Amino acid sequence: MAKIVIIGGVAGGMSAATRLRRLKEDADIIIFEKGPYVSFANCGLPYYVSGEISERDKLIVQTPEALYDRFRLDVRAEHEVTSINPDSKTVTVKHHGEFLTEAYDQIILSPGARAFIPPIAGLKEADNVYTLRNVPDLDKIMMRIDGMNPKEAVVIGAGFIGIEMAENLKHRGIDVTLIEKAPHVLPPLDEEMAAFVQNELKEQGVTVITSQSAVAFKDAGKRVVLEDGTEFTTDLTIMSVGVQPESTLAEQAGIELGLHGGILVDETYQTSVKDIYAVGDAIVVKNQITGEDALIALASPANRQGRQVADNIAGIKRSNKGSIGTAIVRAFGLTAASTGLSERQVKMAGLDVASVHTLSKDHAGYYPGATDITLKLVFDPSSGKIYGAQAVGVKGVDKRIDIIATAIKGELTVHDLPELEFTYAPPFGSAKDPVNMAGYAALNIIEGMSDQVQWHQLNEELAKGAVLLDVRSEAELKDGYFPDSINIPLNDLRDRLSELDINQPYIISCRSGQRSYIGERIMKQAGFKVKNLDGAYALYQTVKPEELVNV
Amino acid sequence: MAKIVIIGGVAGGMSAATRLRRLKEDADIIIFEKGPYVSFANCGLPYYVSGEISERDKLIVQTPEALYDRFRLDVRAEHEVTSINPDSKTVTVKHHGEFLTEAYDQIILSPGARAFIPPIAGLKEADNVYTLRNVPDLDKIMMRIDGMNPKEAVVIGAGFIGIEMAENLKHRGIDVTLIEKAPHVLPPLDEEMAAFVQNELKEQGVTVITSQSAVAFKDAGKRVVLEDGTEFTTDLTIMSVGVQPESTLAEQAGIELGLHGGILVDETYQTSVKDIYAVGDAIVVKNQITGEDALIALASPANRQGRQVADNIAGIKRSNKGSIGTAIVRAFGLTAASTGLSERQVKMAGLDVASVHTLSKDHAGYYPGATDITLKLVFDPSSGKIYGAQAVGVKGVDKRIDIIATAIKGELTVHDLPELEFTYAPPFGSAKDPVNMAGYAALNIIEGMSDQVQWHQLNEELAKGAVLLDVRSEAELKDGYFPDSINIPLNDLRDRLSELDINQPYIISCRSGQRSYIGERIMKQAGFKVKNLDGAYALYQTVKPEELVNV
Ligand SMILES: Cc1cc2nc3c(=O)[nH]c(=O)nc-3n(C[C@H](O)[C@H](O)[C@H](O)COP(=O)(O)OP(=O)(O)OC[C@H]3O[C@@H](n4cnc5c(N)ncnc54)[C@H](O)[C@@H]3O)c2cc1C
Ligand SMILES: Cc1cc2nc3c(=O)[nH]c(=O)nc-3n(C[C@H](O)[C@H](O)[C@H](O)COP(=O)(O)OP(=O)(O)OC[C@H]3O[C@@H](n4cnc5c(N)ncnc54)[C@H](O)[C@@H]3O)c2cc1C
Ligand SMILES: CC(C)(COP(=O)(O)OP(=O)(O)OC[C@H]1O[C@@H](n2cnc3c(N)ncnc32)[C@H](O)[C@@H]1OP(=O)(O)O)[C@@H](O)C(=O)NCCC(=O)NCCS
Ligand SMILES: CC(C)(COP(=O)(O)OP(=O)(O)OC[C@H]1O[C@@H](n2cnc3c(N)ncnc32)[C@H](O)[C@@H]1OP(=O)(O)O)[C@@H](O)C(=O)NCCC(=O)NCCS
Repeated sequence: MAKIVIIGGVAGGMSAATRLRRLKEDADIIIFEKGPYVSFANCGLPYYVSGEISERDKLIVQTPEALYDRFRLDVRAEHEVTSINPDSKTVTVKHHGEFLTEAYDQIILSPGARAFIPPIAGLKEADNVYTLRNVPDLDKIMMRIDGMNPKEAVVIGAGFIGIEMAENLKHRGIDVTLIEKAPHVLPPLDEEMAAFVQNELKEQGVTVITSQSAVAFKDAGKRVVLEDGTEFTTDLTIMSVGVQPESTLAEQAGIELGLHGGILVDETYQTSVKDIYAVGDAIVVKNQITGEDALIALASPANRQGRQVADNIAGIKRSNKGSIGTAIVRAFGLTAASTGLSERQVKMAGLDVASVHTLSKDHAGYYPGATDITLKLVFDPSSGKIYGAQAVGVKGVDKRIDIIATAIKGELTVHDLPELEFTYAPPFGSAKDPVNMAGYAALNIIEGMSDQVQWHQLNEELAKGAVLLDVRSEAELKDGYFPDSINIPLNDLRDRLSELDINQPYIISCRSGQRSYIGERIMKQAGFKVKNLDGAYALYQTVKPEELVNV
Repeated sequence: MAKIVIIGGVAGGMSAATRLRRLKEDADIIIFEKGPYVSFANCGLPYYVSGEISERDKLIVQTPEALYDRFRLDVRAEHEVTSINPDSKTVTVKHHGEFLTEAYDQIILSPGARAFIPPIAGLKEADNVYTLRNVPDLDKIMMRIDGMNPKEAVVIGAGFIGIEMAENLKHRGIDVTLIEKAPHVLPPLDEEMAAFVQNELKEQGVTVITSQSAVAFKDAGKRVVLEDGTEFTTDLTIMSVGVQPESTLAEQAGIELGLHGGILVDETYQTSVKDIYAVGDAIVVKNQITGEDALIALASPANRQGRQVADNIAGIKRSNKGSIGTAIVRAFGLTAASTGLSERQVKMAGLDVASVHTLSKDHAGYYPGATDITLKLVFDPSSGKIYGAQAVGVKGVDKRIDIIATAIKGELTVHDLPELEFTYAPPFGSAKDPVNMAGYAALNIIEGMSDQVQWHQLNEELAKGAVLLDVRSEAELKDGYFPDSINIPLNDLRDRLSELDINQPYIISCRSGQRSYIGERIMKQAGFKVKNLDGAYALYQTVKPEELVNV
């Protein structure tokens, strides 16, 4: 009878265990989990802070008892594996201060990731700094909130979890300051897309500080000091600056590690040591788009890998095809999501990149309740290969990113996006869905129907002598306008082309980029040199409002 | 200067016109539309009946004036093209009783479809029977509703538009009887999936009659008589039994027609007559899954084809890759959607077919507000090719069907569905999304991990001697149960296997099919012959409640 030892009893580990049981009734399956709970909803933890998830029990998806009853799994919580001994094929386990030894035929490691703790002066003396990875972490935070009624909180790190914590603390009535070292919140997104979220956080009363690290805690943590010397008082500080693979145990067992200490595995999840497999946040995966090594700490890949490793151990061959990384976060009234690579990541990978920003409604504009979605598509300007996408909006953001994630996995290109046939009735979509629309706009770039200037290139182009032509209506200028721009409403453009100088390069803009694209086509066919400001005024106003007039 | 005449000024026609203008500033583009409005939102018409769309103007997306101002399109409403004369390259047009002639270089036909009117006795004498294709049709219906305050309405035909009309009339406070000739509402869906919608319609107070045609109108339409002699009184009758390609004009011009009178076109949308192109509801397309001829009357393909034909005429080669047909309808609190082929259609095409039904939450169950999605995946049991999918639920149905539509277009198979990485945070999805889950369940069928019985095969299997084993908890039996089933709760199954007869074939069921699948795996490994009832009790209860005990 095979004896499989699983280390880590949550997403990857427990998915492996249950699947393994479905395949092998006769296997001995032991799950060691160092924490008091297995199978808990890590992703739900932040929502308990505000009370949005109101029952703590809901966070615990399965208990050891239930897993025994249904799957005959031998689940041992509060058992930390302290060493793996491949020579004797045993593990050493610490339980309530005692050490015990357990033999194994195969091991599945799914130890996850741990919060990265930057070396900040005064951290040791601070008694109000928390990280959030599991239920005991949450309990500690809740104890402070319920017991000490904090008024002010600082969240260090504005990634997905940092933003969730900022929102949930705020909902709880606590004043929140969110500090991010990168130039913008949500570093996985590009700057202009993250700006939507940043603005929303500010509008909801969160103090957002970017391009600043916390460098010191003072007064037992009561004060946080930033690089530039600014200080914030805080009753409660959440540290969410990223995670690291939990690979100490693996390393000590002689298992080869890779990128940032992640566990190296082959296609079948086998580590460098025989009979030891690993999955989840702790392993190095292939980024499916670039083929490069990556660390992707998300629940969906962890669950999938858990099932796949179980299959491999049971003799059903599965290979890890890699991950693309699809993520989403709600920030108050706004949702932001991304899949694949950001424009910045594509550039860093040294690849040619283009992008388009479209502004569409989540469903037919003529049906009540339609809201804006800003969708950014990142692609290869020659092949049309889709590198990634980002979207922000009130509703329907998850759907569009999930569709594009599917397209990426299916190796569809920009050329295929207009071909996609989506559900359309007035409450649900549009005859041309935002995804189709982004496909059209991208195709026009690829096929040379349109030339574009990105928001961050505008000043440079203007400095080189281009003139900015705004084709919005006069009424719209009341919402603000570009300095030094000239205005000819689109519908007058054909009749007023003679006012323009054919030797002058133009950049054309409107609100979303759609009318200016029409204007661009008119001007191009009349012999003008003209480029469309991608995303146009609406995007610029989001990311660089300070440069505009009358906003 | 090229002169392009477009016949039909709505989805396909106007999309062609605007794109053509963007490509050819110098073309003469004339759009003839026989109705008083162009560019209107056909799909929104039903929602005006209830007042959900409250402004009639919202239904008119563009006016001739606006289209002239922006696109210099020569839009001629109330101009019906009565003949095309390919020899002289002219069209004859009727306008307010006068005939005029216009020359053309190329024609784009986008005349759409017309309501099919079955030959029903007494129809001519009926003064309260309406079809709904355009704004004047809607105006007539509204005049009756506003002027005569009808109490009772009959809707003949329970397709997408029929259901929308039933809902909107009901919201308006009118008692509705919905009559469908097919055995169930929404004939494009399979029976058991349509049953969810049928039940919802009934619960909301709509009288639903299936397997019955209307055969006569009496009393100037005040009474509708069905095949079986039943009569219904009605103040207002909507006829929505399907559409036919509007191809009379094409036929008269000598253009070859195909399937059900649809206009035949080549890949570039060129008809059999030189310089005449056609798009939209009126043309025969290739079903992209079977490669067979099909008529697909939906807005998304019409818009796409309109753009593509403009490109072809402007010299940018585009080919029509075909359509898969993705559709959605809201029926009160429920949404139903489908993409690709139904199980019935696959069978009719003579292909091997399998399907799985899964029941998942639209987002993480531990986060408030999660609702059920029943998802049916239809696939080839050997290759895993995805033929189609159907889903019903309160929320998130559009997303899942759009994802699977993308997968079909990308020629992904069942094997790829678990690989898809979707946006997941508690308010948006699950670590295993319903689409992943359907992929897993389907893979288990393909790989022989699970054998299944479909709801419609159950009685036959039982008659052949199988025993039905229900593994729900005892408490759940209170909601009803299968007659002659035995009950062993899943968690007791391993311990009570000895109560079962190893020589006896079993069918195993639970609520959704998930626990019974686990039970099946236990029993299979213990040597039992056992099949899982796909969709289990929840599905059976929806489609055949009358066979169950204590429902
Ligand atoms: C607050 C929070 C919010 C999140 N939100 C999202 C989200 O919205 N969407 C999303 O996709 N992902 C989210 N994640 C990430 C997601 O939870 C992880 O990607 C996923 O759980 C990884 O699965 P895993 O099995 O690799 O690790 P985990 O689920 O973290 O499980 C690892 C387990 O191993 C145990 N362990 C480690 N070492 C040992 C040892 N030596 N002995 C015994 N046990 C050991 C740990 O105690 C831990 O319980 C979130 C994570 C957190 C913490
Ligand atoms: C009530 C209703 C609800 C709908 N709901 C949905 C939905 O929710 N989702 C969806 O995808 N689709 C829906 N549709 C279908 C969708 O509207 C059509 O698929 C789409 O409009 C087809 O585009 P088309 O250009 O082929 O034809 P149409 O948009 O119908 O345009 C054809 C036009 O040609 C004109 N015409 C015909 N012959 C001549 C002639 N000889 N001379 C001049 N003009 C002529 C007609 O008057 C008509 O205005 C709905 C349709 C209706 C009627
Ligand atoms: C829940 C957990 C224990 C895994 O349990 P599981 O039984 O493997 O997974 P699910 O409950 O999702 O069920 C999936 C199984 O049911 C099957 N199934 C689902 N619906 C079915 C249906 N209608 N008919 C037949 N089979 C069905 C699937 O095919 C799959 O079985 P397979 O893997 O053998 O193919 C594990 O994922 C876990 O601990 N999760 C909580 C922690 C976590 O994920 N945290 C991170 C995110 S917050
Ligand atoms: C609206 C209608 C006139 C078409 O007008 P259109 O200008 O072709 O289409 P849209 O308004 O959707 O705009 C799409 C164009 O804007 C471009 N675009 C959109 N957003 C853009 C952006 N942010 N930047 C650059 N270009 C953008 C697209 O690329 C596309 O141009 P292309 O076709 O040259 O590539 C026609 O579809 C219609 O009459 N619709 C109403 C009737 C109908 O569809 N009924 C059935 C459903 S109810």
